[in-house]
Amino acid sequence: MNRITQLFGIKYPIVQGGMVWCSGWRLASAVSNAGGLGLLGAGSMHPETLREHIRKCREATQKPFGVNIPLMYPQIDEIMQMVADEGIRIVFTSAGSPAKWTGWLKERGITVVHVVSSSKFARKAEAAGVDAVVAEGFEAGGHNGREETTTLCLIPAVCQAVSLPVIAAGGIATGRAIRAVQVLGAEGVQIGTRFALTAESSAAEAFKLRCLELEEGDTRLMLKKLAPARLVRNAFSDEVNAAENAGAGEDELRALLGRGRAKLGMFEGNLDEGELEIGQASALLRGKGIQTVAEVMQELTDEYNASAQ
Amino acid sequence: MNRITQLFGIKYPIVQGGMVWCSGWRLASAVSNAGGLGLLGAGSMHPETLREHIRKCREATQKPFGVNIPLMYPQIDEIMQMVADEGIRIVFTSAGSPAKWTGWLKERGITVVHVVSSSKFARKAEAAGVDAVVAEGFEAGGHNGREETTTLCLIPAVCQAVSLPVIAAGGIATGRAIRAVQVLGAEGVQIGTRFALTAESSAAEAFKLRCLELEEGDTRLMLKKLAPARLVRNAFSDEVNAAENAGAGEDELRALLGRGRAKLGMFEGNLDEGELEIGQASALLRGKGIQTVAEVMQELTDEYNASAQ
Repeated sequence: MNRITQLFGIKYPIVQGGMVWCSGWRLASAVSNAGGLGLLGAGSMHPETLREHIRKCREATQKPFGVNIPLMYPQIDEIMQMVADEGIRIVFTSAGSPAKWTGWLKERGITVVHVVSSSKFARKAEAAGVDAVVAEGFEAGGHNGREETTTLCLIPAVCQAVSLPVIAAGGIATGRAIRAVQVLGAEGVQIGTRFALTAESSAAEAFKLRCLELEEGDTRLMLKKLAPARLVRNAFSDEVNAAENAGAGEDELRALLGRGRAKLGMFEGNLDEGELEIGQASALLRGKGIQTVAEVMQELTDEYNASAQ
Repeated sequence: MNRITQLFGIKYPIVQGGMVWCSGWRLASAVSNAGGLGLLGAGSMHPETLREHIRKCREATQKPFGVNIPLMYPQIDEIMQMVADEGIRIVFTSAGSPAKWTGWLKERGITVVHVVSSSKFARKAEAAGVDAVVAEGFEAGGHNGREETTTLCLIPAVCQAVSLPVIAAGGIATGRAIRAVQVLGAEGVQIGTRFALTAESSAAEAFKLRCLELEEGDTRLMLKKLAPARLVRNAFSDEVNAAENAGAGEDELRALLGRGRAKLGMFEGNLDEGELEIGQASALLRGKGIQTVAEVMQELTDEYNASAQ
């Protein structure tokens, strides 16, 4: 794993996903301090909140860190300008076309990585001029691609489609999984679930503890008629599921979803009525309890080293 | 990879999935002759047809081969007795509880492997006395588990849950993927899609050629209200999809499905109205054309050897 560590100037090719309601300055700086790449998650922050997190993150680490910006962000012009003004050197973009902003960011000397769910989107990202892609599979938590391609099938396809370095995401929570996706051609990994459940994550403790006791099958990709998202099964998702099974259309689902469901669940800890976004890999973490980022990074690197073939 | 090759007496820990409409004596004997384990797929055969395939397979190879029997097979008593009478030494069971038949088969000295989609079912299979489990992920073709757990997340969970040897299935069509699931703890692989599209497969050539030009996202897990199955997108699946989106219930879906759809599509080559079962890994095979089993086995082992870390 080489082009990725060089691109970001980091020790381990381990990127922490810039997740809504989890990825503030505490998490990002802890991951960067431990040798990975921490990302602030702009998706759940107002521009001024993000500015504050950028400044606090810079105080908390001397190491490189970045920002993840969903391209459907409402005040996208404002937040891009602010990120550039604050001297951010690494931007991950997701959930939208990389055509518009990649050039703008690159002109300012910013390293750009785009998140894709297919080799078709990977080729578009390469054409737009990004420096690397994150290829994220079906097993990932939260918002997800429509193709439903799993990480095992997606990584080789994307590696074949582009010459850029590929960062694998979705289902990666252990050192063995890092080794496995490296075998498939990835040069780095983006890990969401495992870091979302650490002590430094800004998610509610109740959310973390619930996710740390999930079994296989307890998350499901839902809301496919709006934007597909992987959610933990709870009272809210059961309601969505019943509506979907009965043929509910977009409007009905949008009304059911309402506003602020992810905040309610993940940040405020309402486990019944909130939207709980986490990946399938959560079921591999049962019994681990809430760990620190340093503990997680140590386990990942130890397992990775022990899994050499 | 050791316990699996020993269990079956084979050279490579590569099992060919016993798939409906693909896995007759030509395919199974070719895989066994090439050093893997060929399986006859009883699911699409009348008992007397299976008997004929068993006898022809025995004429075509001196090597071990087996039979896959879905436990929801209508004449299950008859076919089990016949398989035992014909001297079959290896039976893979799927789609049902292993509690009833495992003991019966073991008493007759038959090696029994059960296909599971979760660690919960793997523990049940171990308790029933099977010799190994196939753990099959969401990306696999045809009938599939309700948990939707991908191979990357499923294999480590099953390996942790049981002490039996684990055969990984779902999304494995290359030597790199074999290495990757080995990193995750699997001791063998079951490959369906890749072998379904070989010259020796009994599927229609039109079906094979269609599957060899699929792109990512061209298969989808459908019919979840009946029994989930991964199908190629075509006129028939579009109709199912529209009905499901409109909230169709079990009866309506069953009527839409009718009878003999898989035979119509996979065996008779009706690409519009038939049910075309294939895995996500098909999208990694574009441009390969229809290969022989010997060519596939050579590629798999060469890629596997080249992927050592």
